Amino acid sequence: MYLPINLQSKFALFSEHWSPKIIAQMNNYHFKLVKIQGEFVWHTHPETDEVFIVLRGNMIIHFRDGMVHLSTGEMYVVPKGTEHRPSAASECDLMLVEPTGTINTGDAGGERTAKGDVWI
Amino acid sequence: MYLPINLQSKFALFSEHWSPKIIAQMNNYHFKLVKIQGEFVWHTHPETDEVFIVLRGNMIIHFRDGMVHLSTGEMYVVPKGTEHRPSAASECDLMLVEPTGTINTGDAGGERTAKGDVWI
Repeated sequence: MYLPINLQSKFALFSEHWSPKIIAQMNNYHFKLVKIQGEFVWHTHPETDEVFIVLRGNMIIHFRDGMVHLSTGEMYVVPKGTEHRPSAASECDLMLVEPTGTINTGDAGGERTAKGDVWI
Repeated sequence: MYLPINLQSKFALFSEHWSPKIIAQMNNYHFKLVKIQGEFVWHTHPETDEVFIVLRGNMIIHFRDGMVHLSTGEMYVVPKGTEHRPSAASECDLMLVEPTGTINTGDAGGERTAKGDVWI
């Protein structure tokens, strides 16, 4: 009846990159898992902060005037309205926390925009 | 200028149990770290869901009609208005996510109520 959400079991359910999957909802926020590798698009979320938590691997969040390196067990909050571009040289497993309806490409749109909410 | 938040480094800054420390804010939500051991009080958060993520160890969240066991790498969302009691037989490191101003003892109050916001 009461079942835990196991992060590794959820990661084992998919392999594609840059396609966040929802694993939990708290009020009007979603917790999402995503695998990333390579470079994403520059984008901004004008209406919300966005939380990155690295669960395995290494990534960089690029800003127009700097960057932050994140390794396993590290997190960062990208402030709303701040243009950023995530990247990872090797595959990296992340948890994202953001309001329901937040689009992965923010204001940038384009072909890498995830299509709707996918729960796993 | 851009610095990651390292969870293990933050846990190394304190040792007391049942006293959540804030490490990050996303919009009007706080990310908190807490070490727990033993049994907490029964309480309810009438206004909000509450997220538990186990970063090290094992814990149980008791409900009036059941319980959920959580181990390292597992999470659970306690729905708002649901009476619950966290416990851990051995020390367990958790991350909590909840709205700013959420009180650890919820509607129960009492001597184990954390005093104000503490950032580390």
